[in-house]
Amino acid sequence: MRISYKKATNTETVTIQQIYDLIKDDLKKVESEFKKNLHSNIFLIRKMGEYILGSGGKRIRPLLVLLSSKLCNYKGESHVPFASIVEFIHTATLLHDDVVDEADMRRGNISANEVWGNGASVLVGDFLYSKSFYLMIEHGDMEILRVISKTTTQMSEGEILQLLKSNDPDTTEDEYLEILKSKTAMLMSAACQIGAILGRVSKEKKEALARFGLNIGMSFQLTDDCLDYTSSNDEFGKTVGNDLKEGKITMPLIHLLRNSTPDEKENVIKMIGSHELDEEKLISVIDMINKYGSVEYTMAKAKRYIDEAKSSLDIFEPSLEKSALLGFSEYVFERRF
Amino acid sequence: MRISYKKATNTETVTIQQIYDLIKDDLKKVESEFKKNLHSNIFLIRKMGEYILGSGGKRIRPLLVLLSSKLCNYKGESHVPFASIVEFIHTATLLHDDVVDEADMRRGNISANEVWGNGASVLVGDFLYSKSFYLMIEHGDMEILRVISKTTTQMSEGEILQLLKSNDPDTTEDEYLEILKSKTAMLMSAACQIGAILGRVSKEKKEALARFGLNIGMSFQLTDDCLDYTSSNDEFGKTVGNDLKEGKITMPLIHLLRNSTPDEKENVIKMIGSHELDEEKLISVIDMINKYGSVEYTMAKAKRYIDEAKSSLDIFEPSLEKSALLGFSEYVFERRF
Repeated sequence: MRISYKKATNTETVTIQQIYDLIKDDLKKVESEFKKNLHSNIFLIRKMGEYILGSGGKRIRPLLVLLSSKLCNYKGESHVPFASIVEFIHTATLLHDDVVDEADMRRGNISANEVWGNGASVLVGDFLYSKSFYLMIEHGDMEILRVISKTTTQMSEGEILQLLKSNDPDTTEDEYLEILKSKTAMLMSAACQIGAILGRVSKEKKEALARFGLNIGMSFQLTDDCLDYTSSNDEFGKTVGNDLKEGKITMPLIHLLRNSTPDEKENVIKMIGSHELDEEKLISVIDMINKYGSVEYTMAKAKRYIDEAKSSLDIFEPSLEKSALLGFSEYVFERRF
Repeated sequence: MRISYKKATNTETVTIQQIYDLIKDDLKKVESEFKKNLHSNIFLIRKMGEYILGSGGKRIRPLLVLLSSKLCNYKGESHVPFASIVEFIHTATLLHDDVVDEADMRRGNISANEVWGNGASVLVGDFLYSKSFYLMIEHGDMEILRVISKTTTQMSEGEILQLLKSNDPDTTEDEYLEILKSKTAMLMSAACQIGAILGRVSKEKKEALARFGLNIGMSFQLTDDCLDYTSSNDEFGKTVGNDLKEGKITMPLIHLLRNSTPDEKENVIKMIGSHELDEEKLISVIDMINKYGSVEYTMAKAKRYIDEAKSSLDIFEPSLEKSALLGFSEYVFERRF
């Protein structure tokens, strides 16, 4: 379905389906790139790669590369391989994350490390990382290489900081936001910057898209935090309270710990990281989260990031792609899975 | 101590100490680069990085970068950071290897994953990988970037192949050599190529140095395999039979399995990967290895790779650096730790 330009720019209410429709041909090409780039004489690489890439990811990072490059009037074909590469990098981090978290589930499926073991997840993650750099270097754009290598370095620092802070009830809001920025928002920002670099737009527009991606990323992770305390079991394979069970201190919990009574705080701290968290205890935490409005607080923060993301696009003239990116911002904030 | 040029080229018997003396100033600079590049706001990165980089590595890959660039008359300063980057990449693979192998020791010290956990090893390894690419991109040499990114991709494939073949007594010699090539020899080859690329020598000389490094790497790993069956407990923190205990099928064992009687073979297969391998059983395997000359067979192969490495340097005029590289080849073959 083709969205009418006028309608889209006037209403800014393009649906997520309309956005995906807008780039569906390119997204198909991105999927073909995955297949091509997973090629290896070693069957396990393709098998694991296809398993995790085919497990219901929303392709948000490729979408950002594709829409940003179109917004910046890029007419070439490199946006497709770069969209694929960014998702490869994301996939590598998922594989390594699951080893670090000792996760047994990912997106409602058994996690790769649970199926093939930690060793395979570490090494196939390394393959995806290395192959990503190999493919980027083939394309030879030094500016994109600089952005991505800086991003992946900072991502690993964010992951390490998160590991050091896991199960730490004294994690501050600022520390937490710093982790989110490094581990999630930077790659979304990089995805948008790729579009700007390919389109050779002004420094101001590049910075605007970098800010857009960064703020989208922050909001994306904060809404994700909320979904963990609000989504029902059958949506997106997530069960309520997973973060709490895994000892992940996320924004709603940070808010709760900051605002609850000493007794309540002590109780919550006891539950953090308890793999045997029963229904009753979980409900007691959710009740407290409701009582103190911790989800509302987090969503209000998420909303501010979205507003910031949207306003950073002011520098761009109205276009179908701009409307799609604005519409995508709404989706990030309003999504239910 | 300064080695006389004439003496060195005539005798080709420079000692390993003389070789290190030749590049000691640059090696000191390489160590400073490590410190600089391990800088991060996250203390754990520096701590783990320094732990593993300071744990008695022989700096073979930096040595190859430094000597190759001098052999190719490179007069700039980039060989130092590149020597550091190659060791960073090597260090990243060590961190990940130990997670994959569930190792508790590395070079006679407690392995990093045993001290800080698998998660930290995975993530600090990722940091070193990413930082390596970041630093290389800063230097902006596309040819080096191509060589290194191709190498790291192939290294991860080699590691995966090794994982798939671990504990597999049917691993063939060809499969094993393919693993060695990818996981060890390619990076040594890349180290030598960096020197050639920096020195802007002819295609023939680049290929010659690539072959030199590859053959040195093959020989290095094969002699390492032998040391596992021959070195005494106090040397280099290695104990005899470690590979066997860890289920690692290396060249002496492949040779033994191919040549032993069906009964002997069955016995050896039972012992592979047995963490409770007692002294008596270990001695019985070593006896068989002696009986069939499996170490001698492996050392003869290692010697052929060394001869190949040395002859590939024929294209270069005599020089102190050439003698040092030739002397280094001898050391690789004759070392006892």
